[in-house]
Amino acid sequence: MTVPSNPPAAPPVTAPAVTAPALDSPALQDSAFLRACRGEPVPHTPVWFMRQAGRSLPEYRKVREGIPMLEACRRPDLVTEVTLQPVRRHGVDAAILFSDIVVPLKAIGVDLDIKPGVGPVVARPIRSAADLEQLRDMEPGDVSYVAEAVRMLVAELGATPLIGFAGAPFTLASYLVEGGPSKNHEHTKALMYGDPQLWSQLMARLAQITTTFLQVQVAAGASAVQLFDSWVGALPAADYAAQVLPHSADVLGALGETGVPRIHFGVVTGELLGLMGEAGADVVGVDFRLPLDEAAHRVGAGRSLQGNLDPAVLFAPWEAVEARTKAVLAAGRTARGHVFNLGHGVIPETDPDVLTKVVDLVHRESARA
Amino acid sequence: MTVPSNPPAAPPVTAPAVTAPALDSPALQDSAFLRACRGEPVPHTPVWFMRQAGRSLPEYRKVREGIPMLEACRRPDLVTEVTLQPVRRHGVDAAILFSDIVVPLKAIGVDLDIKPGVGPVVARPIRSAADLEQLRDMEPGDVSYVAEAVRMLVAELGATPLIGFAGAPFTLASYLVEGGPSKNHEHTKALMYGDPQLWSQLMARLAQITTTFLQVQVAAGASAVQLFDSWVGALPAADYAAQVLPHSADVLGALGETGVPRIHFGVVTGELLGLMGEAGADVVGVDFRLPLDEAAHRVGAGRSLQGNLDPAVLFAPWEAVEARTKAVLAAGRTARGHVFNLGHGVIPETDPDVLTKVVDLVHRESARA
Repeated sequence: MTVPSNPPAAPPVTAPAVTAPALDSPALQDSAFLRACRGEPVPHTPVWFMRQAGRSLPEYRKVREGIPMLEACRRPDLVTEVTLQPVRRHGVDAAILFSDIVVPLKAIGVDLDIKPGVGPVVARPIRSAADLEQLRDMEPGDVSYVAEAVRMLVAELGATPLIGFAGAPFTLASYLVEGGPSKNHEHTKALMYGDPQLWSQLMARLAQITTTFLQVQVAAGASAVQLFDSWVGALPAADYAAQVLPHSADVLGALGETGVPRIHFGVVTGELLGLMGEAGADVVGVDFRLPLDEAAHRVGAGRSLQGNLDPAVLFAPWEAVEARTKAVLAAGRTARGHVFNLGHGVIPETDPDVLTKVVDLVHRESARA
Repeated sequence: MTVPSNPPAAPPVTAPAVTAPALDSPALQDSAFLRACRGEPVPHTPVWFMRQAGRSLPEYRKVREGIPMLEACRRPDLVTEVTLQPVRRHGVDAAILFSDIVVPLKAIGVDLDIKPGVGPVVARPIRSAADLEQLRDMEPGDVSYVAEAVRMLVAELGATPLIGFAGAPFTLASYLVEGGPSKNHEHTKALMYGDPQLWSQLMARLAQITTTFLQVQVAAGASAVQLFDSWVGALPAADYAAQVLPHSADVLGALGETGVPRIHFGVVTGELLGLMGEAGADVVGVDFRLPLDEAAHRVGAGRSLQGNLDPAVLFAPWEAVEARTKAVLAAGRTARGHVFNLGHGVIPETDPDVLTKVVDLVHRESARA
């Protein structure tokens, strides 16, 4: 497809319906991905990759050339193309909306940008009650271009599910409080530990924004959502339970009313998996550090798992990739349902042909089992 | 002290004795730090901070001005001054040799440098059997300037223990294989998973180098050692057990013959703590994610714990720092012995006065208990 150099005019704002017509498609609802999310028997283990739409693909690098990340996320035609690329190339069982964690913040007017090689940079970090004024409630019309992209995607994808995408309140808070990516999250933790009331207000506002952002995607036809709490592994379990879980639970609870499966993922979350399930996930994403059988034990019955091949393994010779893919599948059989994925996002230097081979292997191996 | 602008001539090489005279000092052996390491009753909980000698101190920034890191590590007078600074300022219960993880590699001739803002950069990354030739055995004479610094320090420190410093084989391997700091360790894991035999040869060479580097420090008078496996939390437990633990155990086993306590630390090691103890540690360092009572359960009886105040907490108001310091002390009472520390290194922007206040609080609180 061709990508016009100017963003199209925003479509008229419409109030989102709770369930979009596409969700009623029997073939879609019967897809391996949605069945695994619900813990139903599957013809094969479904597979997709976090960051499957991205820099590992030459066709992605081509269409993104010269287009800044946040501009790309606001162009429905470009979002559609980039989201579809890994589905076409790898034959994955689900697409995930191409977006960025800070898109909803930018959409309500927070002054931020994504700097190449750095990440999101926030002009005025939030560290006081006055700073909170930067965060107003999100209205569906703020992200009409996202709804438009989802509608275009659902029309193209047919029976392949589209996963909606959002960052969780803690991870959004970390970017806003630090003013950018952070190794130690020291200002975020100083606020959380030093002013729990302000922290709670900040998290409540972010929960509203995230909820609306995901509701818009479901209303437009996304048939699952993934809530990414990328940085939450920096917290001990007790702090997560007291100061993060209630807000993530507000988001996941509201999404539960739409009926779509809710996936919840973060890295370094071995100690948090049970709590992340309790926050309201139907599917708990597991990073590569913990075998899925141990994760199933921590998450408990009644929830499916997603994961968890180490993305670094894809740099090893094929024999090693094959052995470890099979080991993930074997450990995943102990879970209620298993969506095969990496235990972290695709590393940009990954050979995309290896990803395609992993998809084929997962399908072949799991169909035989 | 004044720092000459040229490094002093290397002292004559002497074969290290297994135990240095300073270790016989009753006051030193009776110090709170060494007693806690051995699990004996203490007058107060001893405290020191990882990276206590470093950029958080204005006096450190002053003496390091214009002197590259690796040059600083090779100058016994500078190492002595920098190592003593936090002892003078904070009244910590132990000093740790100022060094860098790549110092022993540089000492045997590996072509590498530490670039400010980046970290160690290796000219020719090790990814094949031929590349291994860069790693010859270490002789004590290769690091005579380190022995000299330790001797100077022990003379100055009196009854305050000096902890010897070295990086563990896995973390050294990661720098060598990646060619520098790495987020995903993909080349390291590709080598480990793809060529276990070459991996084992690499790790065996690094174990020899690390062992000699620490033996030299103990022979010169260090009364404990800490083996830093900074990056090992990137591995699942099964891979750690099969491909890393045996080599770390070789290092810790050899050091055990010297009779000094061996501390072993890494970050994101919640799943590895038991194995890191089994590798031969007398004291297992715990990062900030896991409460010490849970860590004590995982590590088992017969080993002390070190940790684990979150260094980010030091950016919160004092009331929060105080509450969390007391919580760490309370959880630490469940361990055989407890050395209070941070759960990761001091963040450079930390207010050093807060560190001093934490030392005072730990001493006061634990003496009362």
